[in-house]
Amino acid sequence: MTRKLWTSLARRPIYDNRWISITEHDIVAPTGAPGIYGVVHYKNLAIGILPIDEEGCTILIGQERFVFGSYSWELPEGGGPLDQPPLKSAERELSEEAGLKADNWLELFGKVQLSNSVSDEEAFGFLAWGLAPDQSHAKDPSEELAVRRVPYAEVVRMAVSGEILDGLSLAMVLKADHLLRTGALPEALADLMQRG
Amino acid sequence: MTRKLWTSLARRPIYDNRWISITEHDIVAPTGAPGIYGVVHYKNLAIGILPIDEEGCTILIGQERFVFGSYSWELPEGGGPLDQPPLKSAERELSEEAGLKADNWLELFGKVQLSNSVSDEEAFGFLAWGLAPDQSHAKDPSEELAVRRVPYAEVVRMAVSGEILDGLSLAMVLKADHLLRTGALPEALADLMQRG
Repeated sequence: MTRKLWTSLARRPIYDNRWISITEHDIVAPTGAPGIYGVVHYKNLAIGILPIDEEGCTILIGQERFVFGSYSWELPEGGGPLDQPPLKSAERELSEEAGLKADNWLELFGKVQLSNSVSDEEAFGFLAWGLAPDQSHAKDPSEELAVRRVPYAEVVRMAVSGEILDGLSLAMVLKADHLLRTGALPEALADLMQRG
Repeated sequence: MTRKLWTSLARRPIYDNRWISITEHDIVAPTGAPGIYGVVHYKNLAIGILPIDEEGCTILIGQERFVFGSYSWELPEGGGPLDQPPLKSAERELSEEAGLKADNWLELFGKVQLSNSVSDEEAFGFLAWGLAPDQSHAKDPSEELAVRRVPYAEVVRMAVSGEILDGLSLAMVLKADHLLRTGALPEALADLMQRG
């Protein structure tokens, strides 16, 4: 198969803030059709963490989401600089949002494309266990977060039932569930997850 | 818990094309902190379909993604008008991209938020079975698509291994896998999925 590519003939900057920038391209599609393409560039990676504690519980973060005007329960998540290792951002985010650090980390997935027809946002997800309190990163002053400790099995139920609507949380919980069921996780972690 | 809300003090239209529009708001965060918020509004729902045929195979669509400059294998997906039932859009998309129609449909999930810190894009996913050829919807002239028939179990493997990077495809395959493993799918569909 010959790969037919997109061509960008010209690009115009449209908008820029701390989190995103928008560029409009004049393009030729792989079919040969001319057109325009508005691309949303994200200045951060999306980083998610699924922590599992000694009693098989994880942490959900609750917050009002501005763009939907509704309350959302999600795994600890946040933005990580594009030029830093995703794991380092995950460690910071787990401390900031949940007040925890972890001895053990396992990447659930990386470079997942959250909305690849329009945006270049990439997501990384991690499992974290061997947890201990950690206050080395202050809370983000723009965030008003609720923190809830929930058994892992209950979070799987919430993901499957539609109570969790955040796509990254959903993909992380379902992938962890797949790995647990297929015996692909380290034994110590699998033992913790089955306590919850 | 008292819900603390975001306040939008003023809004400025920034950009508009066929697929998205951008609005910048002056806001007060739930913490009381003032700031700006750039919101990406999507003019379509994200619609995904996981079709299963009589031999337990599904369909993957391959295409060059402009924003990443790379080739991506995904489930059949496309945009559905906000004011139309998602199932109707799924039927059209399955015909356009895979040349198929289905006797049976099951919603895998709805209203999943693909990137809720910045965009209001919502995703719906469907399982489809009882398939037959259908050419009632012409291909989209701006799309250069490859179509590949793949056993369902192989698509699960590709999702878990990271060969499929599209977030919506990933969430759909992993949720279908969960429902199959927990006996939550109609028996006729589960039988088909276990043939692949």
